[in-house]
This record gives sequence, C-alpha cells and structure tokens, in this order.
Amino acid sequence: MQYPNGKKSSAFRQTNHTSKTVYSNRGMSLEDDINDTNQYYLTQNLAIVHKKPTPVQIVNVDYPRRSAAVIKEAYFKQASTTDYNGVYKGKYIDFEAKETKNKQSFPLQNIHQHQIDHMKQVVEHGGICFLLIRFSVTQETFLFPAQALFKYWNSQFNGGRKSIRYETVKQKGYIIPIRYQAKVDYLAVIDKYYMENGGTTHDRK
Amino acid sequence: MQYPNGKKSSAFRQTNHTSKTVYSNRGMSLEDDINDTNQYYLTQNLAIVHKKPTPVQIVNVDYPRRSAAVIKEAYFKQASTTDYNGVYKGKYIDFEAKETKNKQSFPLQNIHQHQIDHMKQVVEHGGICFLLIRFSVTQETFLFPAQALFKYWNSQFNGGRKSIRYETVKQKGYIIPIRYQAKVDYLAVIDKYYMENGGTTHDRK
Repeated sequence: MQYPNGKKSSAFRQTNHTSKTVYSNRGMSLEDDINDTNQYYLTQNLAIVHKKPTPVQIVNVDYPRRSAAVIKEAYFKQASTTDYNGVYKGKYIDFEAKETKNKQSFPLQNIHQHQIDHMKQVVEHGGICFLLIRFSVTQETFLFPAQALFKYWNSQFNGGRKSIRYETVKQKGYIIPIRYQAKVDYLAVIDKYYMENGGTTHDRK
Repeated sequence: MQYPNGKKSSAFRQTNHTSKTVYSNRGMSLEDDINDTNQYYLTQNLAIVHKKPTPVQIVNVDYPRRSAAVIKEAYFKQASTTDYNGVYKGKYIDFEAKETKNKQSFPLQNIHQHQIDHMKQVVEHGGICFLLIRFSVTQETFLFPAQALFKYWNSQFNGGRKSIRYETVKQKGYIIPIRYQAKVDYLAVIDKYYMENGGTTHDRK
C-alpha cells in the first residue's frame, strides 16, 4: 500500500527536470534518476535527501521595475562539498554522483580534492558517505563507500592508477537495484552495507 | 589549545565573504557570522555545516573560447529547503537563519511554506531542526526550535498573529552566546536544548 500509483511518477517528471542534460536514446541521466528516487523517498517518507543548487558566483544583477531581478553576469563555481545530502533514520547521509562513458574504469578526475576532504570530514563525524558511480554504457550504478574511495584517491598520488577499475568498483562497491519507483534505490544498499559492517541493522519496512 | 589564533579569523574573512550584503556601522550580517562560526566548527572538527548555494535558474550561458563559461541570463529561485545543513555527532542538523530590524516581533513572512514543509519532514526523520532569529537592533540571536515555530506558523492561518513576539522568541527560544571564535555558537544551545528535552547528554569537549 506504500507504493505510488502511475500519476506520481509523471508528477516527478514535471517538477524535477528543469536544467538537465538530455541524453536521447539512452534513457535518463543519473542526476534525473536520483532526483526521481529522492522524490519517491520523500513522498514515501523514507528519507529526506535533496540535491544542492549549482554554486554560482553572481557578479551583476539587473533590477528592472515591476519584474523579477535578472542575473546578467555570473560564473560557475567549483563545489566545495558533494551534491546530495539529507537525513535517513536520524542519520546524516551525504553523497556525490558521477557517470562515466568509460567501460573499463572510473576516472578519478571526475572528483575534486575539495570533495574528498569534505567526504573525509563527514565520515569522521559519523555520517553515511559514498559515491554513486554509473557506467552509462551498461547502465549499471554502484554505491562505492567513501572509505574505499579514499584508498584509491590517495594511491594515485603515489604512482597508482588514476582511475578505479570496473572490476574493483564491482567488488568493493554494491550494485544498486533498479526499481520502477526508485531508479537508483540506494537506501536498499545502505541498509545492506551497514548490516555487513556490523552497524545497526536497518530493516526497511 | 583548541582555540584558533588571530590569523584564522582573518582567513575566514577572505574566503567567505564573496556575495554578502554589507551592513556598515552595525557589525557583520547574521549570514557572515554563521559562515564564520561554521568555519570555526569545521577547523575545530566540532561539526560539518555548510550554507547551500543560492538556487538559480540558469537560462542562457555563453561559452567563449579559451575562457570560463559566462552565465548571461539567470533568475533567483525560491529555496525549497532551508539554507544550512550538515552533521553533528552523526546526527543530521538543519536550520534557516533570519534577521529582522523589527524590535517587537519576528514577522512570519520571512519564512516560506516550502521551508516549513521541509522542516517538518526533517523533524519527523529525527533531524535537529531550528530557526536562528537575529534582532538586528539589539544584536541578539536566538535558536528557535522548529517544533515551536510550527505552532506559531499554523496559528497565523487561524486568525492568529502574523509574527512571533520578541518576548515569545525569548521565552520559547534560547539566546545564543556570542564567542570571539564562534559568533553564533549554536552548538552550545543544541547541547543544552537536547539535554533539557531528555535527549542524550551532549557534552562538548
């Protein structure tokens, strides 16, 4: 009875897709799928997770009479944190999502040092932190725990690979089940991940 | 030994004050003070709290050769959540901050229905949620718990006041101590607030 009807799914479409990249012929982008999933979690009262707005440095704003302020000059800023955060069963949850066209590996250049620093802080403060990696060719999405990411991130500065092999992502990460209502059902994996690591058993109802 | 030296404080100044409103002759704005406080908490490893970027609807972007993309047309969007969130001792923390020039009361029109909806969800999911209210004339800043806010918010639609009296803010809220390093030391009040409400005792080290 907690499942949404067809109407809700189309309602998500209308509200969420404002400034997306359109990938014709190969389904929705990872960002769109995550937005839909978050909207589903919100509607079903499972978790409260939002994407942060794109950080923009505003330089010049025009205030015309009788109409809305228009930003005339602005620049994209590098994000100092991850893109998504929120609350799940009282706990802080924080993640970044990246898609790659590469089949063999996930290039680490998709991530910035600032984001790694932020993720380390989150882990240290007891938050649930991870990377969602989608291989767009196979449309597989993995939850890759932050703790595992740090190891490969550091290794690249000591002569190691500048990417994480697909096989490693598969082995150290968790494939995310695709559900009609939750296209990137990461909560299912969080429950599993926390159980396996001896944390509290998070049973989903 | 955990206290920062003078250098750090000036370093905060340089990095945080990018798109602020300048209030000359009456000290820093609430947003600046909170940014400094969050930076202090981050440096001292007490909590990880960030301000979300201002939500902007980007309409037109110019991509000049050999230089950064320029946003040529964009509009401010209404925030669907609060401005600040993060993690404190593993728990999710979420708040909005508002300043008023009014001496007698805090006008509820400073808050949007979307934000109230979001705050209700956060409370339901076990997050720590509140409003920071500053009366700019007296420079007093209060932590006003979300649960108290909901009551006054709802009351305005049933013939009640459209503002919360200063005396009520003082009585139902908690005045925030001003410290040199943490100008809006809300963690001190969270510890107190949670203790008084029978939650776990959060001793600060």
